[in-house]
Amino acid sequence: MITGIGGSVEVDRRTPLGHASRMKIPEIILIETVHQPGSLAKVLQVIADAGLAIEGLTALRRQQGRTLWEITLEMDEEADRSLYERIGQLPTARFVGKSDRVFNRHRGGKIRTVATLPINTREVLRDVYTPGVARVCLAIAKDPAAAYEYTALGSTVAVVTNGTAVLGLGNIGALAGLPVMEGKAALFADLVGLSGVPILLTETQPARVVEIVTGIASSFGAIQLEDFRAPECFEIEAQLRARLQKPVLHDDQHGTAVVTLAALLNAAQRSNVDLRGSVIGQIGLGAAGSGIVRLLQAYGVRHVLGTDRDPAAVARLAASGVEGVTLETLMQRADIVIACTGVKGLIRPEWVRKGQVILALSNPDSEIEPLAARAQGAAFAADGKGINNVLAFPGLFKGALDARAKCFSDAMLMAAAHAIAALAGGDELVPSPLERELHEKVAAAVRAAAAA
Amino acid sequence: MITGIGGSVEVDRRTPLGHASRMKIPEIILIETVHQPGSLAKVLQVIADAGLAIEGLTALRRQQGRTLWEITLEMDEEADRSLYERIGQLPTARFVGKSDRVFNRHRGGKIRTVATLPINTREVLRDVYTPGVARVCLAIAKDPAAAYEYTALGSTVAVVTNGTAVLGLGNIGALAGLPVMEGKAALFADLVGLSGVPILLTETQPARVVEIVTGIASSFGAIQLEDFRAPECFEIEAQLRARLQKPVLHDDQHGTAVVTLAALLNAAQRSNVDLRGSVIGQIGLGAAGSGIVRLLQAYGVRHVLGTDRDPAAVARLAASGVEGVTLETLMQRADIVIACTGVKGLIRPEWVRKGQVILALSNPDSEIEPLAARAQGAAFAADGKGINNVLAFPGLFKGALDARAKCFSDAMLMAAAHAIAALAGGDELVPSPLERELHEKVAAAVRAAAAA
Repeated sequence: MITGIGGSVEVDRRTPLGHASRMKIPEIILIETVHQPGSLAKVLQVIADAGLAIEGLTALRRQQGRTLWEITLEMDEEADRSLYERIGQLPTARFVGKSDRVFNRHRGGKIRTVATLPINTREVLRDVYTPGVARVCLAIAKDPAAAYEYTALGSTVAVVTNGTAVLGLGNIGALAGLPVMEGKAALFADLVGLSGVPILLTETQPARVVEIVTGIASSFGAIQLEDFRAPECFEIEAQLRARLQKPVLHDDQHGTAVVTLAALLNAAQRSNVDLRGSVIGQIGLGAAGSGIVRLLQAYGVRHVLGTDRDPAAVARLAASGVEGVTLETLMQRADIVIACTGVKGLIRPEWVRKGQVILALSNPDSEIEPLAARAQGAAFAADGKGINNVLAFPGLFKGALDARAKCFSDAMLMAAAHAIAALAGGDELVPSPLERELHEKVAAAVRAAAAA
Repeated sequence: MITGIGGSVEVDRRTPLGHASRMKIPEIILIETVHQPGSLAKVLQVIADAGLAIEGLTALRRQQGRTLWEITLEMDEEADRSLYERIGQLPTARFVGKSDRVFNRHRGGKIRTVATLPINTREVLRDVYTPGVARVCLAIAKDPAAAYEYTALGSTVAVVTNGTAVLGLGNIGALAGLPVMEGKAALFADLVGLSGVPILLTETQPARVVEIVTGIASSFGAIQLEDFRAPECFEIEAQLRARLQKPVLHDDQHGTAVVTLAALLNAAQRSNVDLRGSVIGQIGLGAAGSGIVRLLQAYGVRHVLGTDRDPAAVARLAASGVEGVTLETLMQRADIVIACTGVKGLIRPEWVRKGQVILALSNPDSEIEPLAARAQGAAFAADGKGINNVLAFPGLFKGALDARAKCFSDAMLMAAAHAIAALAGGDELVPSPLERELHEKVAAAVRAAAAA
């Protein structure tokens, strides 16, 4: 995955077209300055000299003529931290330490289960537990569909991972991926009122993953697959979709595709390009790239070029009509270029053709800077800032569950993309993910598409 | 399982010593009466004439000289419902219909997941989701124990069933058992703040059940097995305990055993009987009976007699020192008799010996009425009213998780039993399960025992 201002898009980091860049993770530091003109500026200059951009800056408190600042730096694990010493050597500043803010917000976990009604009388206990509950059990035994009415089944989504491709961190294992799964569950709860249940699998072999998930699938209304590495993710999802009569979605493929399609709908409109009639060039054919290509074809795009260092990735998509080409050929022939490789600067400015639309989606460093692409005559260029799966997945699952859909259809994915695109304001490609109304509208569109 | 005033104890219904009785499930009816002396009495007389006991009665509203009553009747599925017509034929009463109260309390489910902090700013989103979450993932990848600090792992309990022995309803399947699992999860949340996660398995073959549960076990801090039928439940639990380095407990065996031991401690004390030195007779050797015998042996009881219609059940326990005998022999030789067979009236009054202590635990109809046993000279006799697993399981799991115990030890189970016994007031054998303080004390006792 790639990280940016607005969040994340999952991409195949082991791109064939370069070596994966290190994942950038914000580091939050606490700096105390003397409250006088220039003291903060000097600190920021030291940070600037270290080549680091500032992502956030907050005054936490001021007392006795000193201010405590919380500064969020965009840096990776191997960045030079000697700048902290240099800050400490300033006469008007002191390096207090690193902030525990992120860890504090994770302490004890980001989700919990609550009872929907307090169990505080004997009557309630006997209604919701034994013996009253038996009557509800019998009703479900008689008609399994009643489970959607009298249990939380219809609002419960498993968030399943085996930890083989967590964020941009790679195969760190399922337990280490739990904070991401809890994050998804917290977003489900907060944005659309669904109950996400993190499920961590120790298994990596696809057939056994499918067996285990199938074995517990009746616990959930729908299943979100998350951070499974390519190419195993394709087989796992396909098998589960075939075996389960409920919505299954690998978010890294299709969530990303929905948000990318939404961005492309707006990009194409603003640059007066006919999306369906264009030649699309997809750079990087991992989970994200494959999902994007598949959804664009479903949308009606007829001519897709693809490139990836892994010939197997190209071959996999050739079967569905994607023409495998070199990167240079792709740049020469594509009207619309989409890149999700995780490789900074992969696209050389001189390759850009006049009138091209370019979405270089890798975060935080895109395959080509939008300004550089436009300087070469691109009709439209954007990076992956703001392209965040969280725009799509809550509404996709809410809509599918509300419709009691048996699967996610292409129509449902496209409906979500249209709903997201329609809510982008000003010069945004996509809207902010924190608007509750957005998720309600996406859910309504998905539900309607499921029912159609 | 058997149901009673206070709740439930799970027992082997397919007892060898009689045919299983039908499970009684309360039925709630709405009756309107004219507001005048005698109108309600007449209704109750019709119910009495039908041989039904009244479990609850509430005036829902009074208007225009008429009162609407909600009456909860203790009846089974095959009871004669023609009494409703007879009530309707009374000049001062009208049968309005059945109440939806139980179903309404289940509508939409009894649990839901919530986010522990609102995700309403870009900063929070970037801390709890990407990119900030990556730092927490890396911390767990480096030190898996950090998951207990920065995720909800340490407060999350899987409530796992395959639906082969749900309540007294038998093998109705896991989905039909979901309301029970949600009930357990709601009680976990409400009583001790743990997050219960219902996990429904479609698999019944023990080795495959073990594979599936092992495959998802890293998602949870502890695992509660629930409503698995005997004898498969023994193998499933033993295998999971051997394979997992976290607390696993089959509640039908050990939760029941803990509450029964608590009741026995009080019963023995009140009848001046030395529990350890007594000959114990266990009637019914299913999940509950086996668990009780095992815990009593761990407590220090040396001489246990057992009886069950299934010779395999007797043979299974013979290996651990239980002497298999006939029911009559057991009644002749045991100082303390415990019955959990689900068979009403199994113990004939004439079999009772002077000075015996008898716990006839089946609900709602016990193996012998306590009054009848006492009339025959029993030193102490009680039925299963109030003997409810919910007295034990919330505190057992809370204590085990707080201690980060790797398993449930006998010391932990016994500590829970002592804590429960100590809180019984007056002539109660065990306290009410709705006291929050009870569960805190059980948890503290279990935690201390785990640490010892």
